[in-house]
Amino acid sequence: MQLGMIGLGRMGANMVRRLLKNGHECVVYDTNPDSVAALVAEGAIGTTSIEEFARKLKAPRNAWIMVPAGITDKVVGELASHMQSDDTIIDGGNSYFRDDRRRSERLRHDGIHYLDVGTSGGVWGLERGYCMMIGGDKVAVDRLDPIFKSLAPGIGDVERTPGREKLGGTAEYGYLHCGPSGAGHFVKMIHNGIEYGIMAAFGEGFDILANANASLKKGAADAETAPVGDDYVYDINLADVSEVWRRGSVISSWLLDLAAAAFAENPTLENFSGRVSDSGEGRWTIMAAIEEAVDCDVLSAALFARFRSRKEHTMAEKVCSAMRYQFGGHLEKPIT
Amino acid sequence: MQLGMIGLGRMGANMVRRLLKNGHECVVYDTNPDSVAALVAEGAIGTTSIEEFARKLKAPRNAWIMVPAGITDKVVGELASHMQSDDTIIDGGNSYFRDDRRRSERLRHDGIHYLDVGTSGGVWGLERGYCMMIGGDKVAVDRLDPIFKSLAPGIGDVERTPGREKLGGTAEYGYLHCGPSGAGHFVKMIHNGIEYGIMAAFGEGFDILANANASLKKGAADAETAPVGDDYVYDINLADVSEVWRRGSVISSWLLDLAAAAFAENPTLENFSGRVSDSGEGRWTIMAAIEEAVDCDVLSAALFARFRSRKEHTMAEKVCSAMRYQFGGHLEKPIT
Amino acid sequence: MQLGMIGLGRMGANMVRRLLKNGHECVVYDTNPDSVAALVAEGAIGTTSIEEFARKLKAPRNAWIMVPAGITDKVVGELASHMQSDDTIIDGGNSYFRDDRRRSERLRHDGIHYLDVGTSGGVWGLERGYCMMIGGDKVAVDRLDPIFKSLAPGIGDVERTPGREKLGGTAEYGYLHCGPSGAGHFVKMIHNGIEYGIMAAFGEGFDILANANASLKKGAADAETAPVGDDYVYDINLADVSEVWRRGSVISSWLLDLAAAAFAENPTLENFSGRVSDSGEGRWTIMAAIEEAVDCDVLSAALFARFRSRKEHTMAEKVCSAMRYQFGGHLEKPIT
Amino acid sequence: MQLGMIGLGRMGANMVRRLLKNGHECVVYDTNPDSVAALVAEGAIGTTSIEEFARKLKAPRNAWIMVPAGITDKVVGELASHMQSDDTIIDGGNSYFRDDRRRSERLRHDGIHYLDVGTSGGVWGLERGYCMMIGGDKVAVDRLDPIFKSLAPGIGDVERTPGREKLGGTAEYGYLHCGPSGAGHFVKMIHNGIEYGIMAAFGEGFDILANANASLKKGAADAETAPVGDDYVYDINLADVSEVWRRGSVISSWLLDLAAAAFAENPTLENFSGRVSDSGEGRWTIMAAIEEAVDCDVLSAALFARFRSRKEHTMAEKVCSAMRYQFGGHLEKPIT
Repeated sequence: MQLGMIGLGRMGANMVRRLLKNGHECVVYDTNPDSVAALVAEGAIGTTSIEEFARKLKAPRNAWIMVPAGITDKVVGELASHMQSDDTIIDGGNSYFRDDRRRSERLRHDGIHYLDVGTSGGVWGLERGYCMMIGGDKVAVDRLDPIFKSLAPGIGDVERTPGREKLGGTAEYGYLHCGPSGAGHFVKMIHNGIEYGIMAAFGEGFDILANANASLKKGAADAETAPVGDDYVYDINLADVSEVWRRGSVISSWLLDLAAAAFAENPTLENFSGRVSDSGEGRWTIMAAIEEAVDCDVLSAALFARFRSRKEHTMAEKVCSAMRYQFGGHLEKPIT
Repeated sequence: MQLGMIGLGRMGANMVRRLLKNGHECVVYDTNPDSVAALVAEGAIGTTSIEEFARKLKAPRNAWIMVPAGITDKVVGELASHMQSDDTIIDGGNSYFRDDRRRSERLRHDGIHYLDVGTSGGVWGLERGYCMMIGGDKVAVDRLDPIFKSLAPGIGDVERTPGREKLGGTAEYGYLHCGPSGAGHFVKMIHNGIEYGIMAAFGEGFDILANANASLKKGAADAETAPVGDDYVYDINLADVSEVWRRGSVISSWLLDLAAAAFAENPTLENFSGRVSDSGEGRWTIMAAIEEAVDCDVLSAALFARFRSRKEHTMAEKVCSAMRYQFGGHLEKPIT
Repeated sequence: MQLGMIGLGRMGANMVRRLLKNGHECVVYDTNPDSVAALVAEGAIGTTSIEEFARKLKAPRNAWIMVPAGITDKVVGELASHMQSDDTIIDGGNSYFRDDRRRSERLRHDGIHYLDVGTSGGVWGLERGYCMMIGGDKVAVDRLDPIFKSLAPGIGDVERTPGREKLGGTAEYGYLHCGPSGAGHFVKMIHNGIEYGIMAAFGEGFDILANANASLKKGAADAETAPVGDDYVYDINLADVSEVWRRGSVISSWLLDLAAAAFAENPTLENFSGRVSDSGEGRWTIMAAIEEAVDCDVLSAALFARFRSRKEHTMAEKVCSAMRYQFGGHLEKPIT
Repeated sequence: MQLGMIGLGRMGANMVRRLLKNGHECVVYDTNPDSVAALVAEGAIGTTSIEEFARKLKAPRNAWIMVPAGITDKVVGELASHMQSDDTIIDGGNSYFRDDRRRSERLRHDGIHYLDVGTSGGVWGLERGYCMMIGGDKVAVDRLDPIFKSLAPGIGDVERTPGREKLGGTAEYGYLHCGPSGAGHFVKMIHNGIEYGIMAAFGEGFDILANANASLKKGAADAETAPVGDDYVYDINLADVSEVWRRGSVISSWLLDLAAAAFAENPTLENFSGRVSDSGEGRWTIMAAIEEAVDCDVLSAALFARFRSRKEHTMAEKVCSAMRYQFGGHLEKPIT
């Protein structure tokens, strides 16, 4: 079927490629004409303005937007001004679910469907397929099913879940209609929150392994430093450990595969400084948990560790140092 | 080659089965004669005492112990009394790495090798193979390589890590000599610590999803309850979400596969009360981190959530309630 | 000077009493006529409607609102309709600082000042005085200084901070103009966030003390329970410990005083179930930290412990139980 | 009465001074003759060896040891060799409670009493008195009561806890017999654990306040940074806030007094780098909680924040960065 794509960055362009490969027709637009030209060369229909983009789509139009979250509102607004009742706008970016609710409400006045699609898969999606979490009207979701099916990984060679055959639905093909507007990005938000947690769990585990030789390098004990004891004598090969866990262990996972790849490239990860960015989803996950009164110590700790990783020192630490100095005359020790 | 196995519980018995299938000779012993008989019927050589068990092993003997951690010391001691120089005792249970260090030190006086082998794979190991993390003398590890190779999953159909072909070693076959005595159980301990963290990350994520309908069921607001707002209107199907994440998402993993299987059986998990046990490894992981001065907020939060899950209420909570009553006259609200 | 007070609950009524005692004139209103009558009997000027309330105030009017956060907007709106340029509305409740910003913006159009005053002191404020954190226009803050001074504790017999004499200002009298609109409730919000953290720190500490006899009551060890060892043999008297820490220790504090009072009443706190409510400030504190990208593991853990305290079991826990069952056949243990 | 003191550092010397002031006789020893001479000049009886020290004490001897934890065992051993049945050794340092249990067991064979005394008060103890938590035989505790009473703060002008008059005991004088050997240091350990938690709660709160101006200094948003919004416009004066909370607020406490003093000296705490040391008690507190299966997210987070404060970057952070690069091509951003 036909799909329009606005925003031809890494994600948008690769999704177009995957759709073209599967025989769909793609009308594409980007503010950068080179990005458009590149996909035209691969079989897409290029356009030079949102107005032209809308005109080249057949009604009912299906237009997928894949732009940075900060400009989604603007693009949705402009696009909608060229659309008509029963057309569908799909936001495939990382919007906050409350923004989806607001947008779909507004577009509903003009009879335009709005789908929010959380997409996981990163740079690997072109080859592996994209895992998609979808929110919005069932009529639009059903209409776009051929698109979702082509973008998704499909069942592939992943073993089927016992009992799944009785449940039916599209989940095991790698895409899912999660609920009304916002539900797609809500589920994707939680996905990313969990992702932070798993990454931090691996990070901390490898950190403890990396310091398993603490007894070998310990300095002189003093009143300001607790002694480490004599049992931490292991120089663990993290590349080998990350590899061995990939087969047969309880924690085998795609993130572990990536860790193994990183350690295979550089066994000390010295090529990374350790400043870990966070985008909105991890933050929104904790805020949602708080509003729902759900405790989430693990996911929040993972987020806070990222915050801390990007700082030299915090006011919190200085306050603790200052208090220690005040009550005990403790002077700070230089870093060792 | 020949291996002796003491302790024919679920893990020990299945390991024997996997070895028999691979053409090894297994001498077995258990305090329960039925367990011995069952494996004799499958081709193992049965014995009725540790003394007989040791006698039936050819020198240099290789004896694997798979018993509860609490009695390992006793069994190692009795077994060692029937062994001689250059024999090897393998502890495949979940010992604390410091106990390994102590035991291997003691056995070294008699020339007996001691290997500590952390084993992951649970009830699935018979079919999938066991991921093994090994500590101890290289000479004994090398000698037992055929056993480890048979127990391990092998490369299988798991995609190779890029660059791994240059690194060599046994890690990608699913077993690894991690270092001197204790290193195997140390790495296994961290494996379990990470496992707790990943499980908790998924748990919290599903919890936030399960409460995404909070706005629909909220009661009357009062001074003691913060209002939830109107945006949490989603009845998320957790079975479908756990399934959709299995393909193409960043958080695909074996633990997610298991969650999907559990939700497929019972979409609300009402068949579980939520009291989560913990064995020693999760605790030792945090203790090791503390001794190494490594921060591990995620792994510790995962452990503490298990502690809390097994209690009705804690003194900590009562202290908070009591303080609130003292300063603000706040009375506790009944559970809603 | 003259002050109007709307909302004569525990906090509002006691503030009026403290002001009357200090020679101020108080015009009061509450939807409950009995509350008005009680204060009229103590010297206040009663009113039966917001309109009458506004009429009895001399221009420029000073009207303090002390009502539940949920109805503040409504009361502010109605009151403002009876006020004129240069009058001042003070919100002494627990508003979210963003609501203060919105309200003050709206009132500014009519020339009405809006002050947000975070108030700490609880039921003890009548006697001890109220600690006040104030946001809004300096002109209104200055005008109301006599009121703040009377409500505040004053320097009292609390030892002066070294160097404070050079800094001046009102802080050591127990009230502070913190900044523009919202700043007062922002600082009060953080105050409550810290309060949660300190309460939880004490709570956890007493919990570890309460379980210092774990070795005495331990049951039989099994594969699902890590053994506690033999060193936890102490039956600690929590009432005595909370008392001894009150004098000379680093952690002496008002919250400890309250804990000591609670333990003196009931050494096991059996009169509390342990369901700990939370109002908005603790939640907003964490949300503010997240928006500022400040890590706050301690304050968030304190909040989450309150969430958890009000539940029987969580989905997170059930997910962990379900995974354990799936990979290891672990069945849940009954509570001990 | 007579007391011997070994170890004349800041703590030991000041305790001797407080005892001398209260009319007690003090025999003192230190490896540094100058420390001995200084106290002799103030009325103490000096000695030049442990042997002479023991000889100058009248039987039954009372010898208080105030030395670094690392050499306590050695000093106790040498001292014991010069003592006899019914003498008492008091360890006033920061020993691990398990070491107390071991030592008292050993000394009991020779009929020597061993008391473990956790002491809080730091450099302020000379003037304010020391809060003491005592473990060991009742007979020795009772015998030394005059010493404890003189060292402790006494009731002073701290308000009495309601109901305390019925409970009796020494707790409100600032010293307490907590239980058998180890109980004193156990309670002191928890005291310090709580101290870490309270300090971190204040630290985090001030950190959020210090960043309440985040909207004013935010840079350009990009895909790697979540935007902060427009509401964080407050330049909060931390010196004033810490001061205002000292009077009438729920979080008034001695640690807050110290924070106020530190901020009064330097409102940005730029004189501190923020590397926060930790001694053993905070670590042991968490280990005790883990062995008791008590959840302590707040206290552990406080400890881990100290660990993190002393590092540039952690392996955990590098692992997260590496994974992000692997799945999304995310490059690290430089610190802003």
